Amino acid sequence: MKTTLQVQLAARPGPEGPALQNFALCDVPLRAPGAGEVLLETLYLSLDPYMRARMYEGANYAASAALGAPMPGATIARVGTSNADGFAPGDLVESAHGWQSHHVASPDTLRPIPDTGLPVTTELGVLGMAGHTGYGGLLRYGRPQKGETVLVSAASGAVGSVVGQVARIKGCRVIGIASGEQKCRYLTDELGFDVALDRRDPWFDAKLAAACETGIDVYFDNVGGEIFAATIPLLNTGARIAVCGTISVDRNQPPAQGTDRLTMLHSAILVKQLSLQGFLYTGLLDMTEAFRRDMTAWIASGELRYREDIVDGLENAPEAFLRLFTGENFGKSIVRVAHA
Amino acid sequence: MKTTLQVQLAARPGPEGPALQNFALCDVPLRAPGAGEVLLETLYLSLDPYMRARMYEGANYAASAALGAPMPGATIARVGTSNADGFAPGDLVESAHGWQSHHVASPDTLRPIPDTGLPVTTELGVLGMAGHTGYGGLLRYGRPQKGETVLVSAASGAVGSVVGQVARIKGCRVIGIASGEQKCRYLTDELGFDVALDRRDPWFDAKLAAACETGIDVYFDNVGGEIFAATIPLLNTGARIAVCGTISVDRNQPPAQGTDRLTMLHSAILVKQLSLQGFLYTGLLDMTEAFRRDMTAWIASGELRYREDIVDGLENAPEAFLRLFTGENFGKSIVRVAHA
Repeated sequence: MKTTLQVQLAARPGPEGPALQNFALCDVPLRAPGAGEVLLETLYLSLDPYMRARMYEGANYAASAALGAPMPGATIARVGTSNADGFAPGDLVESAHGWQSHHVASPDTLRPIPDTGLPVTTELGVLGMAGHTGYGGLLRYGRPQKGETVLVSAASGAVGSVVGQVARIKGCRVIGIASGEQKCRYLTDELGFDVALDRRDPWFDAKLAAACETGIDVYFDNVGGEIFAATIPLLNTGARIAVCGTISVDRNQPPAQGTDRLTMLHSAILVKQLSLQGFLYTGLLDMTEAFRRDMTAWIASGELRYREDIVDGLENAPEAFLRLFTGENFGKSIVRVAHA
Repeated sequence: MKTTLQVQLAARPGPEGPALQNFALCDVPLRAPGAGEVLLETLYLSLDPYMRARMYEGANYAASAALGAPMPGATIARVGTSNADGFAPGDLVESAHGWQSHHVASPDTLRPIPDTGLPVTTELGVLGMAGHTGYGGLLRYGRPQKGETVLVSAASGAVGSVVGQVARIKGCRVIGIASGEQKCRYLTDELGFDVALDRRDPWFDAKLAAACETGIDVYFDNVGGEIFAATIPLLNTGARIAVCGTISVDRNQPPAQGTDRLTMLHSAILVKQLSLQGFLYTGLLDMTEAFRRDMTAWIASGELRYREDIVDGLENAPEAFLRLFTGENFGKSIVRVAHA
């Protein structure tokens, strides 16, 4: 009998947050595809920060992952056996079958991968959810105008690197926050950011304030936490904050004690007439055509670059996933589950 | 020589916030109007919560009031001597010359008062800045849809009463928060709110949660502070928060200590895809025509009501002003400086 190798959620995270012992590698029997179904072999698995919230019990914008089931996630897969019209063995599709090597799927859950001339992994990164989130979130909620200052956190990541480059293409002054010198150099030397700031720098707050001397017009926030708090006094009147992620904060952990900054933020919203908008990728799907057209053109012309951090082997997914939260990954995090 | 009676800012507020001893009543010499100028006699002075922030030194969206100068504020005035084309003695105008009985003005700072058939005081309240703020802020930033739940704080006030009634007219379920039973009865019995909640009720939090059982779609926030915090868990996905005021919080006083709720709010913004927009009246001026047309029609048809809290005598302005922050005023707060 055929099996699928799964990385399952074995236990929910404890007070320290997600750890290797929360995951289990299991080989699970897989039924044959029925009428109208296809058998998929996973080639690539996307690792994304949103998966952390799914590991916990309780409400989020999506259901939490079940114990003893594979972790959720987007994949690029190859069709093996096909009992479905329009799908032939060897076809490449995007599926959302999570951290596993094989899957039996109904075609309505699959997106055929178009031929863009770019590596298929881009469909999980710069041309996938991450790129779409950065492109759409910046343009729709950041509303950057030529000459404005755009700040983006987690700027060398899959979302942030798109945000900063699109802002540059739109004529903005772009400031990126990343962790470590290597990523900062990448932002300025390869992606054309005007300023890159290392969040680990002991003088980070002072350097951020100096870089934003004329104020921030758009803050694309991937991280929340202390960096979000540090931007508030630097925002210009009428600034837009696109709230995309909270990678720096595990919101299932207890809140900090000290000064309650809720009123500080509320006052800033009023006094500076700020706009804050939380959003998900799913609210940007109407922009798909413009997104793919602009991005493929910018990549082809060399105006927009991307970087992927590909790890080999499904068994290494948990470790690669945990690196998202320490800033050790560098570029869009992808697991190569099988060779194409 | 002619004089003008002024209520001046005599001292900036101390740690307890604004108090009577911060004000002084002074009779000040007034020059005669020059070429192209008019002499104004103040009939009515508008008292508004924003004036508190002006009493402090330091940045806000507007300059702080100067010591030894009259407190700022909008007035309805009658033209006395006129050396300006288009202005005749007896004409009524809106001016922004603050807490004083007379003023020499240039015509470009004046708005002639149109004849609406309503008392002239409405030009400072339901047809003035307060009404415009409520109408425009709700429609532009709250974006209420028929059948949605709209919550408004300081709901019996000049802004809040307009917000709630416009939301009702737009087909929403309307919940208002006010202080005291009398104001709550006014909301349900006279203004047609679905639910009114007394913020002084010891069971306020539980009653708010019960009233918002199906969640809040729009929160029009006039107060900030603990009521703002209490709404966050009750907001629906996609909810809009129009941030209009912080009357419950004197932002020049030190922040509270305890749990830092900044991250709680940030997470809610992301997870529920919230929209928060701070705004000022000045950003809504393009809606003036629709505002005046709709409001005068609704008032004429009896669909929308208003209430004014008129105090006699400029010397009583400080006391009336302080009542804004204790919830003792009931309706739009106006000082009658001279009889029309």
